[in-house]
Amino acid sequence: MPYSIGLDYGTNSVRCLLVDVKDGTEVGTSVYEYESGQAGILLDPANHNVARQNPADYLKGLEVTILDAIKKAKQADPSFNVAQIIGIGVDTTGSTPIPVDAAGQPLAFKAEFKNNLNAYVWLWKDHTSYAEAAEITALAQKEHPEYLAKCGGTYSSEWFFSKILHCLRTDPAVFNAAHTWVEHADWITGILTGTDHPEKMKRCRCAAGHKAFFNNQWGGYPDKAFLAKLDPKLGALRDTLPDDTYTVGEAAGGLVEQWASKLGLKAGIPVAMGAFDCHLGAIGAGVAPGTMVKVMGTSTCDVMVSDPSTPPEDIPGVCGIVDGSVLPGSFGIEAGQSAVGDIFNWFVNYIEPGGSANGSHRALTDKAAKLKPGQSGLLTLDWNNGNRTILVDQRLTGLLLGQTLHTKPEEIYRALVEATAYGALTIINRIEEYGVKIREVVNCGGIAEKNPMIMQIYADILGREMKVSRSAQTCALGSAVAAAVVAGRAAGGYDDFGSAQAAMTGVKEVVYKPIPENKAVYAKLYKLYKQLHDGFGVAGTPGGMANVMKDLLDIKESCQG
Amino acid sequence: MPYSIGLDYGTNSVRCLLVDVKDGTEVGTSVYEYESGQAGILLDPANHNVARQNPADYLKGLEVTILDAIKKAKQADPSFNVAQIIGIGVDTTGSTPIPVDAAGQPLAFKAEFKNNLNAYVWLWKDHTSYAEAAEITALAQKEHPEYLAKCGGTYSSEWFFSKILHCLRTDPAVFNAAHTWVEHADWITGILTGTDHPEKMKRCRCAAGHKAFFNNQWGGYPDKAFLAKLDPKLGALRDTLPDDTYTVGEAAGGLVEQWASKLGLKAGIPVAMGAFDCHLGAIGAGVAPGTMVKVMGTSTCDVMVSDPSTPPEDIPGVCGIVDGSVLPGSFGIEAGQSAVGDIFNWFVNYIEPGGSANGSHRALTDKAAKLKPGQSGLLTLDWNNGNRTILVDQRLTGLLLGQTLHTKPEEIYRALVEATAYGALTIINRIEEYGVKIREVVNCGGIAEKNPMIMQIYADILGREMKVSRSAQTCALGSAVAAAVVAGRAAGGYDDFGSAQAAMTGVKEVVYKPIPENKAVYAKLYKLYKQLHDGFGVAGTPGGMANVMKDLLDIKESCQG
Repeated sequence: MPYSIGLDYGTNSVRCLLVDVKDGTEVGTSVYEYESGQAGILLDPANHNVARQNPADYLKGLEVTILDAIKKAKQADPSFNVAQIIGIGVDTTGSTPIPVDAAGQPLAFKAEFKNNLNAYVWLWKDHTSYAEAAEITALAQKEHPEYLAKCGGTYSSEWFFSKILHCLRTDPAVFNAAHTWVEHADWITGILTGTDHPEKMKRCRCAAGHKAFFNNQWGGYPDKAFLAKLDPKLGALRDTLPDDTYTVGEAAGGLVEQWASKLGLKAGIPVAMGAFDCHLGAIGAGVAPGTMVKVMGTSTCDVMVSDPSTPPEDIPGVCGIVDGSVLPGSFGIEAGQSAVGDIFNWFVNYIEPGGSANGSHRALTDKAAKLKPGQSGLLTLDWNNGNRTILVDQRLTGLLLGQTLHTKPEEIYRALVEATAYGALTIINRIEEYGVKIREVVNCGGIAEKNPMIMQIYADILGREMKVSRSAQTCALGSAVAAAVVAGRAAGGYDDFGSAQAAMTGVKEVVYKPIPENKAVYAKLYKLYKQLHDGFGVAGTPGGMANVMKDLLDIKESCQG
Repeated sequence: MPYSIGLDYGTNSVRCLLVDVKDGTEVGTSVYEYESGQAGILLDPANHNVARQNPADYLKGLEVTILDAIKKAKQADPSFNVAQIIGIGVDTTGSTPIPVDAAGQPLAFKAEFKNNLNAYVWLWKDHTSYAEAAEITALAQKEHPEYLAKCGGTYSSEWFFSKILHCLRTDPAVFNAAHTWVEHADWITGILTGTDHPEKMKRCRCAAGHKAFFNNQWGGYPDKAFLAKLDPKLGALRDTLPDDTYTVGEAAGGLVEQWASKLGLKAGIPVAMGAFDCHLGAIGAGVAPGTMVKVMGTSTCDVMVSDPSTPPEDIPGVCGIVDGSVLPGSFGIEAGQSAVGDIFNWFVNYIEPGGSANGSHRALTDKAAKLKPGQSGLLTLDWNNGNRTILVDQRLTGLLLGQTLHTKPEEIYRALVEATAYGALTIINRIEEYGVKIREVVNCGGIAEKNPMIMQIYADILGREMKVSRSAQTCALGSAVAAAVVAGRAAGGYDDFGSAQAAMTGVKEVVYKPIPENKAVYAKLYKLYKQLHDGFGVAGTPGGMANVMKDLLDIKESCQG
């Protein structure tokens, strides 16, 4: 009766899932809400772009949740024995880099940086580094367009080098004190396996490939000369980055004695290399060539893997295509929408009348579900937080069109849902245009779990069946799958992801099927969405007005100056 | 000490104003809410385009309000004597036609039509006749383009012949029972002067010219052959329409004995010809060549008069240019926006969180007033109820652009206000392009009275001083001015409108002046508004997407079919 542990570090909390390796049954689960800052995020009242975290929260959460999940498993089944746990897997948010000293210790743990947010963890959603991102994009366009081709054409302010360069420019004391910067995922697997010393640390392919220009085609991380042109000190930092990176099919090492005794686990059990939450979520939802996994929450992450025999070509506007970033042996393809649930939350929390947030989502959904496609006359763009895929443009904003004096909130709510589905369809169409077939869509995350209306609208608009992952904790389950694979069949796990996924993951019985009449109306509406999308989003589109949103932002920014 | 009476028939109530002819002081006022239907409007639950009224409400309101206003004047000043009342003026909504029999009695008063809404008054906002309006427009484009040139290029579903033709087509029993159709304004002055018999009735220039193609250039009402082509019976109806029509500078007749005794007034005092509420409102706000009067309420009516020596040329998209429709001797120019206050009401009542309607207008205004122009990054089009001037297109809808995940209701509220001001500027620009100079803008109506923030935004966007009419009851005051003019100087009144207005009307001390910094930002924003306006509103605009809203409405309508 082997078990494995999946750890899922999210934006506000960490979750531990203890699963039966035989069939994925969840025998224990525990969540720890980070204690620092606001919902786990350290904010700067003077700069709304700042989002940092305290690495101490990660360590405390590690201990608390594993012990608690084990306790629950024992309560449910007194015969449960921790010796049956064969491995640990880890996923985290990212790019979430941490400045560390030469021994691998986070600068945040040093007394002299205790009160300096720049010495803490730079959370994925920190947006301070937009100027550096533009600078990196511009230099890469000139000197290394191949770097950008793998990440959708634009280097983001959320990514590794943007953040490090921003620190270098704005807080040299922190930058100089850092020996190197490590991703959250790598730091956790380093801690668990005693490889958190920079010279020993193995770094994961997922973060390196998607956020730090890592690619074996050009010898791993980007060229030192390239980084040195941005700043000589950034060039010097290149020397602290290793030559190779590793997929989740490989172990970071064995669990060190210190943590084994703290957690009551067997020392030496393998800890799988980490990866980003959505990538392991895709594994937990059964991703395979031809399957798109949509992780639907406040934003959406769409993950696919290539057929191992046919590496995909570059796909313009798709965030990342990285060898082994999801499953070893396939290219991981990542796309996504900058805001999905966040748009519905915005409408409910800021705009819509009355009631608690939860009450209003429910009330609006109940009313919106009664509307027929097209009936409201409304059309919206899903750009309230910019467009990540396929336009890769944060300087785009929302649009609502068609309202009359009779337009009701539930009509707007439904139009916002529809807009996110049109955005999803635009991504699918782009990926398929470049030769990657999508034969199945499996959804996971809060929206897929909780809102059948939204799933039905997606089925109707995407014109495809919408399946829903069986587990409500798909990311943690994916980590547990990786743990079972690195443990191997000899230890009671599996030798490959295909057989591990077949045993441990699955979809729910309910499948949302397109309704032909709805599909027909939405096909007409999608043409108009695409006209607005290109007209406002793609400079130079005939009949377009791509200047409008940009000009408005320029005016807005000049007003705030 | 002469006094005059102004009667103002609105959409939901009638108001009587008793004023001192010497200086316009209001000595008595009374309002009667129509009793029939919903807020005075007879609705058809099966057809939301239907809006009818009960003529009995008009008669009851006449009696109740005049008696009550006199009573109040006496309470305030016991020396007040009804014999000092020298005349009566009347304004009403329109085009609001009433089917009447050969004796002038409304069909609604007959037992056999008691339960038939088509026999009642067809209120201005009744929209049942859109197909007939399109038919009339198409025929006029072909055969009499000069008819359309005076009314902005499109004949509306709200107007006289559209409604009559719709009745003819859909309820021949009512049409056949009607000897003719009379405007609300003409029916009231007919009743008061005993000229409600169709052969005696004088019809007002304002309604005939703006809503029924009346123009002395082509011999008055439209050609019988033209009407007969729409339907022979409509051609026959042409014979019941008189050759001439009359301005508010002329009397419909003297007050008949029956009503004089009922009201306690002197028989024979002159009753001025009626006109539409906004036209008499313009007079009450001091309209003169070079002055635009904006009557700002749920919708907006912009009224000007030409220099008597220079008749204006046709202005594309401007609703009406009619000789004598406002002041005798000048051409009246009418423009307007289909929804202004109605858009703010929509947002407060349907979309915005919490609070009573009044409370929320106040709360949103308080917060919106603290925002700087351009700060929200939002831009909207004021088309939630279509565009009356200058696009003359009811099939246009609203647009909100620029929203993010942080956009607040007060930002949207302010953007909606700004959009209506951009719409107002577009009208002013169009009128000035055609050679009519606007040297002064005087505002009246609820918004001008109550909301300094909106007035300041208008000043900043229009780049002009915004003045506000002194009287809060400008339409009724205009009617009282007309009464004083038809009474004449010999009776204690005036011989012309210029001297009557100089004595009886005026503006408030507060004047909203453009703030240069705001004006500069709004000039930039207006360029973007105009780009969206033309892009979505004018077919064939390069870079335009004029199909989008229409296609959405087609889809919406096909969904409801």
